[in-house]
Amino acid sequence: MPEPKRAAMSQDGRVRAVIDAVLPCVDGGRFAAKRIAGERFEVEAHCLTDGHDVLRAKLRWRAADEKDWHEVEMKPLGNDRYSAAFVPPAPGRYAYGVTAWVDHFESWRHELERRIEADDIRSAALAGAELIEAAAGRAADKDLKTLLDWAAKLRAGAGKKSGDAKALQALALDETLAEVAARYPERSLATTFALELPLVADRERARYSSWYELFPRSASPVPGRHGTFKDVEARLPYVAELGFDVLYFPPIHPVGREKRKGKNNSLTPQPDDVGSPWAIGAKEGGHKDILPGLGTLEDFRRLVKKAAAHGIEIALDIAYQCAPDHPYVKAHPEWFRIRPDGSVQYAENPPKKYQDIYPFNFESEDWQGLWAELKSVLDYWIEQGVKIFRVDNPHTKSFPFWEWAIGEVKRAHPEVIFLAEAFTRPKVMHRLAKLGFSQSYTYFTWRNTKHELTEYFSELAHGPGRDYFRPNAWPNTPDILSEALQFGGRPVFMARLVLAATLAASYGIYGPAYELMEAAPREPGSEEYLDSEKYQLRAWDLERADSLRAFVARVNRIRRDNPALHSDASLEFVPTDNEQIIAYLKSAPGHDNVVLSVVNLDPRNAQSGWLELDAGALGIDPDKQFQMHDLLGGQRFLWQGGRNFVQLDPQRTPAHIFRLRRRVRREQDFDYFL
Amino acid sequence: MPEPKRAAMSQDGRVRAVIDAVLPCVDGGRFAAKRIAGERFEVEAHCLTDGHDVLRAKLRWRAADEKDWHEVEMKPLGNDRYSAAFVPPAPGRYAYGVTAWVDHFESWRHELERRIEADDIRSAALAGAELIEAAAGRAADKDLKTLLDWAAKLRAGAGKKSGDAKALQALALDETLAEVAARYPERSLATTFALELPLVADRERARYSSWYELFPRSASPVPGRHGTFKDVEARLPYVAELGFDVLYFPPIHPVGREKRKGKNNSLTPQPDDVGSPWAIGAKEGGHKDILPGLGTLEDFRRLVKKAAAHGIEIALDIAYQCAPDHPYVKAHPEWFRIRPDGSVQYAENPPKKYQDIYPFNFESEDWQGLWAELKSVLDYWIEQGVKIFRVDNPHTKSFPFWEWAIGEVKRAHPEVIFLAEAFTRPKVMHRLAKLGFSQSYTYFTWRNTKHELTEYFSELAHGPGRDYFRPNAWPNTPDILSEALQFGGRPVFMARLVLAATLAASYGIYGPAYELMEAAPREPGSEEYLDSEKYQLRAWDLERADSLRAFVARVNRIRRDNPALHSDASLEFVPTDNEQIIAYLKSAPGHDNVVLSVVNLDPRNAQSGWLELDAGALGIDPDKQFQMHDLLGGQRFLWQGGRNFVQLDPQRTPAHIFRLRRRVRREQDFDYFL
Repeated sequence: MPEPKRAAMSQDGRVRAVIDAVLPCVDGGRFAAKRIAGERFEVEAHCLTDGHDVLRAKLRWRAADEKDWHEVEMKPLGNDRYSAAFVPPAPGRYAYGVTAWVDHFESWRHELERRIEADDIRSAALAGAELIEAAAGRAADKDLKTLLDWAAKLRAGAGKKSGDAKALQALALDETLAEVAARYPERSLATTFALELPLVADRERARYSSWYELFPRSASPVPGRHGTFKDVEARLPYVAELGFDVLYFPPIHPVGREKRKGKNNSLTPQPDDVGSPWAIGAKEGGHKDILPGLGTLEDFRRLVKKAAAHGIEIALDIAYQCAPDHPYVKAHPEWFRIRPDGSVQYAENPPKKYQDIYPFNFESEDWQGLWAELKSVLDYWIEQGVKIFRVDNPHTKSFPFWEWAIGEVKRAHPEVIFLAEAFTRPKVMHRLAKLGFSQSYTYFTWRNTKHELTEYFSELAHGPGRDYFRPNAWPNTPDILSEALQFGGRPVFMARLVLAATLAASYGIYGPAYELMEAAPREPGSEEYLDSEKYQLRAWDLERADSLRAFVARVNRIRRDNPALHSDASLEFVPTDNEQIIAYLKSAPGHDNVVLSVVNLDPRNAQSGWLELDAGALGIDPDKQFQMHDLLGGQRFLWQGGRNFVQLDPQRTPAHIFRLRRRVRREQDFDYFL
Repeated sequence: MPEPKRAAMSQDGRVRAVIDAVLPCVDGGRFAAKRIAGERFEVEAHCLTDGHDVLRAKLRWRAADEKDWHEVEMKPLGNDRYSAAFVPPAPGRYAYGVTAWVDHFESWRHELERRIEADDIRSAALAGAELIEAAAGRAADKDLKTLLDWAAKLRAGAGKKSGDAKALQALALDETLAEVAARYPERSLATTFALELPLVADRERARYSSWYELFPRSASPVPGRHGTFKDVEARLPYVAELGFDVLYFPPIHPVGREKRKGKNNSLTPQPDDVGSPWAIGAKEGGHKDILPGLGTLEDFRRLVKKAAAHGIEIALDIAYQCAPDHPYVKAHPEWFRIRPDGSVQYAENPPKKYQDIYPFNFESEDWQGLWAELKSVLDYWIEQGVKIFRVDNPHTKSFPFWEWAIGEVKRAHPEVIFLAEAFTRPKVMHRLAKLGFSQSYTYFTWRNTKHELTEYFSELAHGPGRDYFRPNAWPNTPDILSEALQFGGRPVFMARLVLAATLAASYGIYGPAYELMEAAPREPGSEEYLDSEKYQLRAWDLERADSLRAFVARVNRIRRDNPALHSDASLEFVPTDNEQIIAYLKSAPGHDNVVLSVVNLDPRNAQSGWLELDAGALGIDPDKQFQMHDLLGGQRFLWQGGRNFVQLDPQRTPAHIFRLRRRVRREQDFDYFL
């Protein structure tokens, strides 16, 4: 049996330092932790040795294509914990690890500090001289001379039996000289953590992004006319005004005609029905082609550039599946399953059949050809300027494929971001995130009560997924009109927007359905929209007086202005005495930015209650007032201590987004006081 | 950079099954989980695949010296969890892992169950026939024929366009035939978990043991006379009466004379002072020799055998350190550190000096010689019949040495048990347990309040150490007379005994100091005993009227009779409304054995309060009474529902150890009722 690695006589048994853990560590190093390029990546190690000797530890890191390690001295935190950080300079893949050793020089200093008897100090000075001479042997030039001089003085002092032991001790403990010696440690018996742990550094948008989904074909200002990329261009100022930075389109490819679905998913389409964009491929082409009705490739590339000028990135939908008339079906029948009657196997989950969709067979004999072709779809759109992909149902495609494809794409284009659209079992969602997806859809859509939201977002922020699973919260999607939205009216649309935008650093809405509060389901109990854009063109009146566009714009503006809302790790829930009132803090320590969001979850009634802030943790003086500035409503409240009162009327605004201003000015703060 | 393992085009990309985790898993497989030979070892795996296909998974295991894997089918638990168990047949080292595959036969059945249309059923029957024929190709003899017949019938049924589709579906779903087919799965695209995880199976005493420590030299019935192994032989019935199964001796080797310590750790010993047994080695010999005053090797071997006849094992102390006159010091000066003045470095932690102790230098150039010699000490005593070692301060000896030495010893003698005596920082204690120690001393000695005990023992039972750290709880040791014992009197001695014996499956006391309630410290604030046996002979009056011997015997008897108290995993604390009353449950599911321990932590006052049992979880009918039998006091109480009252007077007995008797007999249960 291949035994696990362990000490053996064949290794050097004199290595006494032990590295018990290096954190973060995803599945024993099988998967990468995720962070942002240009930001500090904090690493913790648990390092031990026998007895009382002092350890030193270095964090090691390097980029995937670097040969040599960079090293950063680790700081002891107590309890055998050591920490250090490095800043991955650019998006890409990195490795990190730790090396540690029993440092006899530091151990000697540590013991010497506590020695009292003159004889012991003289003896220790001699022992120290030996160590310092050894360090000198590893130094050069000025440091070499400095260390030899120091050792010589210690030897001389130790030789004088009646000399001043206290002065000798002080010389031996000289801090400036110790710093010189510490530069030349004896590391021949160092240990290195057995694993080189992987890190993926992404660009900032992987951590913080605001998504807006629209159907380009419904972007026409003329009702009934098929929208185009040019129409979307005209819509850009609107999207920018709302404050979104990712504009995501359902598939823009030719839509299959065979077995095309009609309005409201009807099996009997009319000749003018436009079909589902997810039924990809027709005689006009497949995944690398554009539906002619939307425009040309040139139009698309122009749109990408125009969007960029508004600070908006275009995200495309990657749905690896084919309509029956997709060119792949004829050209590569070997990529599909064949039924006993010789026809191509359509998607099914008995007794349901999806005869307009052919899934790929990832057990195809030509899986290599299939993988290469699917990856080439990503490469093609990257070449057209797309750097963000929202992947449709990744959990119904082979997991090894994703790890390979995302890995290969990011090796060449580390700036690319992948969002996994998987609403499925938790372990599957986590596996996809581990395999490389930059962001993941969440269960937010179905988490409504204070208990549900608290439990779920605490898990997202602090659970084992925190190092690799980045949530992206959507209150609605073209597939999901939640029952909360169906029944709650305007207050729920406002509340769910605030929750998504402040609980998650990345969030998105499917518009204009969201800001226009579209709430009618296809039938009772269904989460499908009535007259869903998935199957027909829709015309939206963006100028409607009751639109939430100004509210959405305000929320997104608050997000932009407050770095506390740009990441998820700091999320802490605040106890309240009312089950309908949820409150939580986020903070950005480097930016003196603390945001408290408070939401009334009851769409019918005004609710009030007491919050219990941890004043000490917030650095609030319990005896002085502090200001809470409601960035949503504009009001400023003066609060005191941890316990404070809130009241929210859903008919006005069901939420506060407070920025904490630490102190209120007093008379002494003004010139005229002095 | 050596990239972590991940999917690559060079692997077979058609492998769609994913094994996300196999549990237990200690530090990514770096260390072994620990269990008991002859008992079920439950393994859980998280297995996934894309889409809706059905997975099958097998647990694989083998003994370290076996080449082939045994396989056990894993049962799906839902939520992508699968479980199976195996019973390691004998103490030793094992490996386990998991293999899983997308099972097209099971997927086909799963889909077929939900098919409704006749055409679909006929088509599916044909597809099934193909799968069954493939299975037949892997079968032989009777099964081969059975499967071919089945496939032929399905083909025939599918061919009849007007045939009975429901009957065809029933034939295709035949469970008996499916079981035959399931024996021949197509596993060519199976995946195997990347790690082979190690397991150490110990004998039962590693999990459940009751220790009694005594100084053989104080075992003489004649005060002032040096005790012998023969005296200990005479003491065996007493130890057996008390109910202990491990009798542990401080070092039994010749005691150093150089720098010998006198009574109460004095630096000025008298000529007749016996010194500390931990100052090992003198002209009479070292770690493989016996102090002549105790007797001969023959005496020792006889004692080991006599003890075994009482169901008691002798455990020896392994203290790897030397008195200045230990033979090693002259024979192997290279195994010690040398001071600048040429003398051997004694143990020190400045400003404290331990000049009677020379530690080994684990950075010796001859570390291999040192390791081999130290291990030979274990081998020597194993040869004399010792199978349990209590290791003195293992955290001051090299960690790689322990992993090697314990590994080597257990490879030859898997029945050997090592107890780590390390009262040090948590990560160090955990590392030692991971390196191979079978049991570990704990912080129990310093955990006194309900909150402290609840938090600590919950962590021990359910925290990450649960798979490798086996607590052994000691209310006292020769080094530790806790302040609780110093000030609490008899009630605390009783309460702490019950706590240790019922919270931990392994526990021990240092006696006769414990049962005779020795409580005087050497000085105020010290945890050292006054007139400690570590430095002098003591005479103990075992027949003292106030001795706790009957109480200890009763507690150990309760432990023996109740399997619930033989392991730690089932521990659950029970809420009480009185901070001085702690209550907790342990259960042994296979044995219908549930034990509720309730202890009054206040040694001064009677305390009462309400317990909140989870009646549902205990299977208690809330409408009926059940019996709680106090095994300690003998009384039987009738309780009802979850909320029940207790009252404990420390002047009588500060604890209940209840056995739950599920139900109380009613009139219907008696013959005369009918």
